[in-house]
Amino acid sequence: MVQLKSPLLRQIRRKPLTAIAPITLLVVLVFLFFRSSGSQKLRTYSYKSKKSGFFNHHRDVIPRNLPGDHISHYDLNKLASTPMAAYNKERVLILSPMSKFYNEYWQNILTLTYPRELIELGFIVPRTAEGDVALKKLEKAVKQVQTKDARFAKVTILRQDSESLASQKEKDRHALKVQKERRANMALARNSLLFTTLGPFTSWVLWLDSDIIETPHSLIEDLVSHDKPVISANCYQRYYDDEKKALSIRPYDFNNWVESDEGLKIAAGLEDDEIIVEGYAELATYRPLMAHFYDAKGDINTEMALDGVGGAAVLVKADVHRDGAMFPSFPFYHLIETEGFAKMVKRLGYEVFGLPNYLVFHFNE
Amino acid sequence: MVQLKSPLLRQIRRKPLTAIAPITLLVVLVFLFFRSSGSQKLRTYSYKSKKSGFFNHHRDVIPRNLPGDHISHYDLNKLASTPMAAYNKERVLILSPMSKFYNEYWQNILTLTYPRELIELGFIVPRTAEGDVALKKLEKAVKQVQTKDARFAKVTILRQDSESLASQKEKDRHALKVQKERRANMALARNSLLFTTLGPFTSWVLWLDSDIIETPHSLIEDLVSHDKPVISANCYQRYYDDEKKALSIRPYDFNNWVESDEGLKIAAGLEDDEIIVEGYAELATYRPLMAHFYDAKGDINTEMALDGVGGAAVLVKADVHRDGAMFPSFPFYHLIETEGFAKMVKRLGYEVFGLPNYLVFHFNE
Repeated sequence: MVQLKSPLLRQIRRKPLTAIAPITLLVVLVFLFFRSSGSQKLRTYSYKSKKSGFFNHHRDVIPRNLPGDHISHYDLNKLASTPMAAYNKERVLILSPMSKFYNEYWQNILTLTYPRELIELGFIVPRTAEGDVALKKLEKAVKQVQTKDARFAKVTILRQDSESLASQKEKDRHALKVQKERRANMALARNSLLFTTLGPFTSWVLWLDSDIIETPHSLIEDLVSHDKPVISANCYQRYYDDEKKALSIRPYDFNNWVESDEGLKIAAGLEDDEIIVEGYAELATYRPLMAHFYDAKGDINTEMALDGVGGAAVLVKADVHRDGAMFPSFPFYHLIETEGFAKMVKRLGYEVFGLPNYLVFHFNE
Repeated sequence: MVQLKSPLLRQIRRKPLTAIAPITLLVVLVFLFFRSSGSQKLRTYSYKSKKSGFFNHHRDVIPRNLPGDHISHYDLNKLASTPMAAYNKERVLILSPMSKFYNEYWQNILTLTYPRELIELGFIVPRTAEGDVALKKLEKAVKQVQTKDARFAKVTILRQDSESLASQKEKDRHALKVQKERRANMALARNSLLFTTLGPFTSWVLWLDSDIIETPHSLIEDLVSHDKPVISANCYQRYYDDEKKALSIRPYDFNNWVESDEGLKIAAGLEDDEIIVEGYAELATYRPLMAHFYDAKGDINTEMALDGVGGAAVLVKADVHRDGAMFPSFPFYHLIETEGFAKMVKRLGYEVFGLPNYLVFHFNE
């Protein structure tokens, strides 16, 4: 408010058009921010300058002072998702549902070599005690990096209302049932995040789970170079092998798979609302799992066609999402969440691929 | 560029935080605009000030001059979709796929009484010769209104690449087949529009077809007051009755319907990729159609539960979309586009309603 007395701001109020903001990435969120109220489901955060008392006056400022001829028309813009993404300045939106904040996840994000000014970040944090903690840590981390020269183009943090999940005990007793509930909930979170953050200039969406703590620094460039509608990295985990007395790696995410005759047979015998979740002995699908196709000596660029994907590290052309590809929270061909997403992508006429020799690593507690 | 020499702009460059823009609604689009390139599917337009040469320098300006402590954190924001939408300043996003620009459609939009500063408009225009014409007219209309005091909060126009549809002749020969293709195409357009324009502060989405030329001025307030996840008006058409020598009305949109035993039987006998489209003699579903439930003397607020909806004038709580409700371009329970959307809404656990006595009117050539 003090600033409103400065000659500069008085001039801006008189001639607002001379002051179109440089800090555009946060401004729209803030603008909308002041306009909504009520009780709610989604909660949104944004980061912007503290020096924005000026902002509260936008309603006075905008309409009254504009000359009649101030609107102009822009030529067609070109939006693409190409293997030369960085060169073409294509925007990548990294989306991570986050129930826990891992410092290693964040440090890994910070080491990505894709130009940071072309990266937008989107997070959705559940309304749980654990989520509260994650949110605080995430906010702190975001604040630190967004003050620096190399800042991300935009950071959006959503807070989702969600039923707290069944307790760990119950989870042990009814693992498969709880898995269905957990994944339906995750699907809703992913959709809220996607529908809310995807903009007209997003070229690529990178789904990166918040417990992925190590990827090649060139993750985006590498995945983009394959030029596929959907492409998934292979998710492994580092661990200490007690027998060999040495660090080793093991497969972690089994949701990247190829459909099998057995899997189709099981699906055909299910009730409408039953689902198949990969990795449970009760449902032995004998599906070829990408996790098992890793070859340490193989070409890192080897591709394989997939029918199901996990969400660990999956790059999606934004137009695939725009065509309608979302994460079903209900059984879709007996599949939900990321696995249902892969099926939906195929129903929309696109192909899904995986990179068995391209590893990303999951946290290990 | 001339402006950069002014003391004001020099000061802004030195202290960019003092210049956070009032014209926020267009700025992000413009900001992103300068950053993308390549060949493409979606094309985006935006309207903003001509005096924005300054803008090209944002990359120089933003990162270098920011003090270290300029990031602040905002408290939780509240987003809701309530019957008191205008009072609560809830944002409504009106989405219209537009292949033809009807002046009456635009005039009707301009007479809506819901506060215009709470309304965002989104259009998607096909890449056809007809679309070119519509785009020009739409741009002209938008420019005119956006220079005035009572401007819309935001206007987004997308241009979609799309295969030109089969010719009218072929349409006559294979009406049902072409209908499937046409509606799949329309579903893709709706999804592109939805995924691209839905923001973190959108409370409601009003789907309003661009050939709806007359609605009650209080359309938004009226539909909102029912507080339903999805609610559809009844779409009629005015015409001249030659027999009675007088103006009259007749039902137009038959996609608002209640499922019937006959409809379910037909669906059960279909191949996986076949669809049911309401209104064809080949597929007599005997579904109760809302179009036939109109009672001129009945209560305008009468509600009826629906299983299928048309897209003429449908209000959707934004959270229903955020949960994943989109318009299937592929057969979804043998339904596509808006009818498939209604089914998807129900699979997501929401109910769908219609207002048989609440009329909106379709263009009549």
